[in-house]
Amino acid sequence: VLNEPKPINLKSELAAVGELWEPRVVGQVNDYDVCIAKVDGEFVWHTHENTDEFVLVLDGELRLTLRDGNGERELILSKGSGFVVPRGVEHRPAATGASILVFEPTGTPTTG
Amino acid sequence: VLNEPKPINLKSELAAVGELWEPRVVGQVNDYDVCIAKVDGEFVWHTHENTDEFVLVLDGELRLTLRDGNGERELILSKGSGFVVPRGVEHRPAATGASILVFEPTGTPTTG
Repeated sequence: VLNEPKPINLKSELAAVGELWEPRVVGQVNDYDVCIAKVDGEFVWHTHENTDEFVLVLDGELRLTLRDGNGERELILSKGSGFVVPRGVEHRPAATGASILVFEPTGTPTTG
Repeated sequence: VLNEPKPINLKSELAAVGELWEPRVVGQVNDYDVCIAKVDGEFVWHTHENTDEFVLVLDGELRLTLRDGNGERELILSKGSGFVVPRGVEHRPAATGASILVFEPTGTPTTG
């Protein structure tokens, strides 16, 4: 570990991202992943039944719509803002060109 | 949850931080905390025996020195760079005025 400690440069990692909405794992903390993703347009509605999910906006603006039986609520998250999507809450991320960091258990399916 | 979804604004959260090196929990992901801290000067050498720890530099520059029986290795982490300190690795953070984000299990002692 001490021979090759590997700093994580988010800018370089983002430059290596190809697909939109495809999380790239940049670090592992026990059984959790630190991921980054480039996002654009509207993603699908989904729910993570068994885990919370932390999202931090690195660049641009993320629109995160939450919904339950009573209706929808849209959150606008700008650069430097984050949100913990609680387990079981249906949500749909959307953006006009943004990059995000996500912290979630390893193996969490992107679409819930 | 949908009535009062609470975005986390890192800038506002940092403005509310008083003590240096004192993590402020800004979000919880299952049994992990998302924390921020203002750091300045040299912290103590310490080791987290049972957990990895992710650090991301939000502002300024963090100098993270790692050591084992063979010597020391200093990492310079600038804004937008991060590092996962593996469990069991002795480390000492230092800075000349920086702010950081940390992901770690809830209850992880600051000094290992």
